[in-house]
Amino acid sequence: MDGKSISQAVIARLPRYYRYLGDLKDSGVERISSQDLSRLMKVTASKIRQDFNNFGGFGQQGYGYNVEYLYNEIAKILGLNEKHNLVIIGAGNLGQALANYMNFERRGFIVRGIFDNNPALCGKEIRGIRVQHIDTLEPFIRENSMDIAVLTIPKESAVRTAELLAGCNVKAIWNFAHVDLNVPDNIVVENVHLSDSLMKLSYGIVNK
Amino acid sequence: MDGKSISQAVIARLPRYYRYLGDLKDSGVERISSQDLSRLMKVTASKIRQDFNNFGGFGQQGYGYNVEYLYNEIAKILGLNEKHNLVIIGAGNLGQALANYMNFERRGFIVRGIFDNNPALCGKEIRGIRVQHIDTLEPFIRENSMDIAVLTIPKESAVRTAELLAGCNVKAIWNFAHVDLNVPDNIVVENVHLSDSLMKLSYGIVNK
Repeated sequence: MDGKSISQAVIARLPRYYRYLGDLKDSGVERISSQDLSRLMKVTASKIRQDFNNFGGFGQQGYGYNVEYLYNEIAKILGLNEKHNLVIIGAGNLGQALANYMNFERRGFIVRGIFDNNPALCGKEIRGIRVQHIDTLEPFIRENSMDIAVLTIPKESAVRTAELLAGCNVKAIWNFAHVDLNVPDNIVVENVHLSDSLMKLSYGIVNK
Repeated sequence: MDGKSISQAVIARLPRYYRYLGDLKDSGVERISSQDLSRLMKVTASKIRQDFNNFGGFGQQGYGYNVEYLYNEIAKILGLNEKHNLVIIGAGNLGQALANYMNFERRGFIVRGIFDNNPALCGKEIRGIRVQHIDTLEPFIRENSMDIAVLTIPKESAVRTAELLAGCNVKAIWNFAHVDLNVPDNIVVENVHLSDSLMKLSYGIVNK
């Protein structure tokens, strides 16, 4: 499969399919037609078939989709069959919330280190992981081959830290800072701009 | 202006324009050409002009954009010239992180109440706001006319709470629970599905 040929819009929909299929699987549903999945997810059945055709289909005419098989296939496409080591940079409320979120670990995202520049937070334990000073971040990443760095720090520090991360082979940055990071193309960046989301909500309120 | 005629894609880009214009304004820049804004934001100049034409333009041929004027106009379009009262439901790490985030307040989003079902958290103060028991949520919203409810609770509680909110005139729900909420069309819902974002990141890692 050549991942590069799949449109961003399709990729953005995959986690939602994965979520619904996981819920169906947990409810003991073994197979589902694209019509039923369509009703459940409020996406047209033809859109569902089109999306899945990007990956070779998954369905059999007249049978529908095998829920567990489809769930596992989408997991593989999303890279959830592999473990990903991650470090959280910024041990404030948001960093702690992410560190404490067990569901990430269940999907293979394992928090290996938590870092902060605030001496008062260093040494504190979050789910058994001791917060370390940010000065030890670079050697830690180099020695432990971290895949993902999560940035839950203010934007000025985020820009500097992203430059440092670019120099030490992290594969991806999950960026919660309210700034667009400038990193080489080989580093995957996914932004969670909470303010942007809140502004879209506000737009919806005043324009409805 | 008829907000309904503007595409979701354009609306989704407005907060980013607002952010860049705010940074330019803070740096003392008074006007900017669409070419310079294009280079800065890595969006084509023609896309920028197209986006702004949805709202009547804002620019003068040969002069460029007046940064402060454009910033203020986009703020109005986004409803940031109005105050929005919000309640946070779920006083865990994520709820506390959002309550403590001063930038939201600067943009007119004022946290008026924080609620949780955990008695151990009730009474605790977060930025001067006492956490109240979830049982008092409904009368609080009715008496204080809250615009936005922020859901930072697990998905099962989120579904139930959204039903309750639908019955007491909140205008919008900012949903951090990992579930799609089923509410009437007159309630604006903006989802922040962190797991979905992390899976997109993971897709990017395994398919690059």
